[in-house]
Amino acid sequence: MMSVATESSATDVLEGSRLLARLEALARFTDVPGEMTRLTLSPAHKAAAAEVARWFAAAGMAVHLDATGSVVGRYEGTQPDAPALILGSHIDTVRNAGIFDGNLGVVVALAVVEQLHADGVRLPFALEVHAFADEEGVRFPSTLTSSRALAGRFDAAALDATDADGITRREALKAFGVDPEAYAACSRAGRALGYVEVHIEQGPVLEAKGLPVGIVTAIAGATRGTIELVGEAGHSGTLPMEMRHDALAGAADMILALERLAKATPGLVATVGTLTIPGGAVNVVPGRVRFSFDVRAPDDRTRLDALDTMRATLAEIAAARGLATTLEETYDAPAAPCDGALQAALAAAVAAEGIDALHLPSGAGHDGLSLNGVMPIAMLFVRSRNGSHNPREHASAEDIGAAARVLSRFVRGYTPGG
Amino acid sequence: MMSVATESSATDVLEGSRLLARLEALARFTDVPGEMTRLTLSPAHKAAAAEVARWFAAAGMAVHLDATGSVVGRYEGTQPDAPALILGSHIDTVRNAGIFDGNLGVVVALAVVEQLHADGVRLPFALEVHAFADEEGVRFPSTLTSSRALAGRFDAAALDATDADGITRREALKAFGVDPEAYAACSRAGRALGYVEVHIEQGPVLEAKGLPVGIVTAIAGATRGTIELVGEAGHSGTLPMEMRHDALAGAADMILALERLAKATPGLVATVGTLTIPGGAVNVVPGRVRFSFDVRAPDDRTRLDALDTMRATLAEIAAARGLATTLEETYDAPAAPCDGALQAALAAAVAAEGIDALHLPSGAGHDGLSLNGVMPIAMLFVRSRNGSHNPREHASAEDIGAAARVLSRFVRGYTPGG
Repeated sequence: MMSVATESSATDVLEGSRLLARLEALARFTDVPGEMTRLTLSPAHKAAAAEVARWFAAAGMAVHLDATGSVVGRYEGTQPDAPALILGSHIDTVRNAGIFDGNLGVVVALAVVEQLHADGVRLPFALEVHAFADEEGVRFPSTLTSSRALAGRFDAAALDATDADGITRREALKAFGVDPEAYAACSRAGRALGYVEVHIEQGPVLEAKGLPVGIVTAIAGATRGTIELVGEAGHSGTLPMEMRHDALAGAADMILALERLAKATPGLVATVGTLTIPGGAVNVVPGRVRFSFDVRAPDDRTRLDALDTMRATLAEIAAARGLATTLEETYDAPAAPCDGALQAALAAAVAAEGIDALHLPSGAGHDGLSLNGVMPIAMLFVRSRNGSHNPREHASAEDIGAAARVLSRFVRGYTPGG
Repeated sequence: MMSVATESSATDVLEGSRLLARLEALARFTDVPGEMTRLTLSPAHKAAAAEVARWFAAAGMAVHLDATGSVVGRYEGTQPDAPALILGSHIDTVRNAGIFDGNLGVVVALAVVEQLHADGVRLPFALEVHAFADEEGVRFPSTLTSSRALAGRFDAAALDATDADGITRREALKAFGVDPEAYAACSRAGRALGYVEVHIEQGPVLEAKGLPVGIVTAIAGATRGTIELVGEAGHSGTLPMEMRHDALAGAADMILALERLAKATPGLVATVGTLTIPGGAVNVVPGRVRFSFDVRAPDDRTRLDALDTMRATLAEIAAARGLATTLEETYDAPAAPCDGALQAALAAAVAAEGIDALHLPSGAGHDGLSLNGVMPIAMLFVRSRNGSHNPREHASAEDIGAAARVLSRFVRGYTPGG
């Protein structure tokens, strides 16, 4: 199959090794020397945004920082002020992150525009590239404010949220150099063609399948919370087995029941990630146990059914063991399905690159969640060793190049309303 | 059936209400006002020991503090320097303890001697009452030093052990007013008839059976330790179920396997009392879990077989789940079986009081463990609400009186070598 390389006079713009070098250059903007830490609206983020803005401008885009701190570049189409197809990802990171999560999607989207610019090509629609300011949610209690503003869903209360040092988001935005109150201007609701994001896969599926890229079917919905089981503490030597109400044994029942349920339900993942035994000691039968649950599925019905089953199983276990239970949900987000037409167009571009078009869900959250229902969304995953949120996460130059060629082919072939 | 009360001219000495009042008087010696905290060799312990010594002397006993801080009273028999039957328990406590654990056994043994003294009765053997100084093991890393010295098994290294403030046991003993190096004189190895201890039951068995006292068959052997399972951490949303090596799910398997094993094995109790997930988070599949185990049985073969099964099950679970495991034993003590003749004599005394003679194991450790193999041991358990090591532990005046009458009847009926 023919590569897009033969169709362009500036193919090297999409070269993976060039894009990898640009990611490494961007990684120098860190708040903690020696690691990749760039929390939203930090000094390193401000410097990185300025550098990204220079890159955007050099690619022929009109550039500004929006009210949430995102770098926004606009590459006009054949008609001025045409509706835009939005590309992008985020440039904030978690602490001690890798250099690919978020940044990769910005660098790949930029390369597609750079190539158009170098080729002197205008499309029958505008392109916007957004380098979102706030996706990771590490610094402030709320997150996704950049993409929520884009969707016209910015919650002004987020401006009063404070970080660990007591600095409000409003103050941080002002120090970043933007007007926090101007968020209404960020909205593209009713005016955008869609949103397409390239991102490393946080899981191991592409690696296991031997594929460089994959097409995301949906950003999974997620419900998280805490379960508490209360039985009766007792002396480990003197309380006969048949008289026990062991809260930890009940938790073990529940952990395994959740695992069985998820294994038996296509698309469902369920995790108990934390567990504590208040007052626990080696010689005390646990009287109280608290543990977390995290249930996700690309389809809301699957997730809600699983939560119903989980609650029923919990009640059965508690009844059988003489335990009291409470279940508290702390987070609940519906799934964001990816647009069928955009998925099909991405799949065609993947196939045109000679790559098997694998469709897979995203178990992790992304900015597309904010845009669900406001505009069509799509995502292209890139194979990553060691997942994400990990200094050892790694996408190869070859895979980055493949992603760039797929996105370029997709964008050049895209027809508004087609 | 006739009560021993009719046989004595000083029956009221054994009255439960009187002994309960004495326990409450002893409880005033506490290091923490408002609760019962009397760690070994503390100022409160020193004052309590002085009070107990006065009570012992008033009961016609020759009294001294031994090299480990125990109060030792000796009530001579018809012949001076006759071998002694040893009665007693401990007067150190855990933090925020109840007033019965340990202290009850001393007060009941004292009452038996008081009654003999009041009646002017000498037995064909001596009685010693020991108020041990060091049973709970809260202050120093090693414990049971008082009974170990009695058995001729004192380990001089225990003198160099330090408490949380860096004070050595040697220094604490000197401050208590005894000569730490004189421990050899504590030994009764080869010179004692046996050791009989009255203690509250730490478990709920007597309460469940509706019995005031019970005869202990053995002090259970115990093995404690830590198991670590290591799998692979991963993102809770993006790691498919079939690719997981979840250390917590493996731990849940193990917790339930241990519970099934103990339920299926008469006499065995097994407990997982602590569990930690280093680096655990709600959205991370646990990569590493550490949990404790505590396995006890009144019979060593039962316990050792259970440990073999536990190790084999752990290996199976680890292999099935792709986990690495380590198992570290941190404590291992063989069971101390109670002497058959002493048990039979106690059972006869119980029956003579019109009480069903129930035999039951002690799942908790006691000073008798130190004496195992050196002299015959026996224990009489007294029903306790809310177990032990609990400010709400409670033995009723009626039950305490029953225990005192049983011990008195047993002592008066005891025949050396009979």
